[in-house]
Amino acid sequence: MREAYHDQLSRLIDQLADMCGMVGTAMERATRALLDADLDLAEQVIGGDAEVDDARANCEEYAYSLLALQAPVATDLRKVLAAIHAAESLERMGDLALHVAKAARRRHPHAVLPDSVRDQFAEMGRVAVDLARQAEQVVRTQDVNLAKSLEEADDQIDELHRNLFTVIMDKGWPHGVPAAVDITLLGRFYERFADHAVSVARRVVFVVTGRMPGYGNDEIV
Amino acid sequence: MREAYHDQLSRLIDQLADMCGMVGTAMERATRALLDADLDLAEQVIGGDAEVDDARANCEEYAYSLLALQAPVATDLRKVLAAIHAAESLERMGDLALHVAKAARRRHPHAVLPDSVRDQFAEMGRVAVDLARQAEQVVRTQDVNLAKSLEEADDQIDELHRNLFTVIMDKGWPHGVPAAVDITLLGRFYERFADHAVSVARRVVFVVTGRMPGYGNDEIV
Repeated sequence: MREAYHDQLSRLIDQLADMCGMVGTAMERATRALLDADLDLAEQVIGGDAEVDDARANCEEYAYSLLALQAPVATDLRKVLAAIHAAESLERMGDLALHVAKAARRRHPHAVLPDSVRDQFAEMGRVAVDLARQAEQVVRTQDVNLAKSLEEADDQIDELHRNLFTVIMDKGWPHGVPAAVDITLLGRFYERFADHAVSVARRVVFVVTGRMPGYGNDEIV
Repeated sequence: MREAYHDQLSRLIDQLADMCGMVGTAMERATRALLDADLDLAEQVIGGDAEVDDARANCEEYAYSLLALQAPVATDLRKVLAAIHAAESLERMGDLALHVAKAARRRHPHAVLPDSVRDQFAEMGRVAVDLARQAEQVVRTQDVNLAKSLEEADDQIDELHRNLFTVIMDKGWPHGVPAAVDITLLGRFYERFADHAVSVARRVVFVVTGRMPGYGNDEIV
């Protein structure tokens, strides 16, 4: 039974890592759709979200049957529970990529972003996708040090997010309220995506070390 | 063992129901703080969020020990997993009330909201708090019909949320970008709070009926 359990657990971990890959790709495409007003890419992300939802449902069912059939305890149990939480965060990351893609589709053929914030979104997108890729590695390798480096990347997103507000709140902002509203929501989607990636990594750290890293500054609005 | 299990499960359910009450009260106070620029109330919500976080950690630890010691299967296992998910949603609802309170504190002694959207936020707050109270009843009673009525209240929030955009996107909007940005974020906090309340109820439905209600329209940005 122990061997069967470990085979099943490693399959569950593979499923989670694959989900990290899926949502990373979704955010990469959504960001390109946003920056280039690319409707095809936006539609790919929108159509592809059901796959992320299915992957999450599969993870959860798999974790459920693992608990029911193997009744793991101690660290083994914590691993399965961490996987259930991680799958939830990952589905949410998929939803956030979906929201970015929908914003791109809603304004098509117009660009959503004025030029003055384009670079900031390109950078937020790059860091966000990178966070998903790093989360994938953390899930696969359970490398606690790598998990810590996600916190730094998350700080970068928070900094970019704060700068965004400085730009749109400026008295000289020439693009009006609708653009500011779009940017406010989009900024939040990237920031939440990053938070969830960090939360996936934190769950892995918790399983490996038995301690949850602090939740101090994980969300700044 | 079965009896011990059922005692523990009903304690877990009580903890969850109490969390619904806590986040409902937090959102009620946060909304009053927002509407009345009441700094004391805002501080109460901000200082009280750690209690919600603790309650969630306690629920999770309790669920963990229940799984480890009792190794429930079938519906019993689903109930514990549903409780773990619900606790996560409830903690998030607490965070969203906290964000509302922080917005009120950030602009104090000024009001965050122009008069033209005050009534809409009063109404969103009322419905959101009501959703938390209804979620509490659903958790306590496992009443599937009551769970369905949450979906209707959630539709109300979505409708109010959409109207808000109509108001701030209007060409004649006289309050500038900063007010529009605040309103955009605040609107989203209420809408997410409502979504999470619905998600708590849906998990209960899933446990009782074995089927998850559709996730069709649970988030409109």
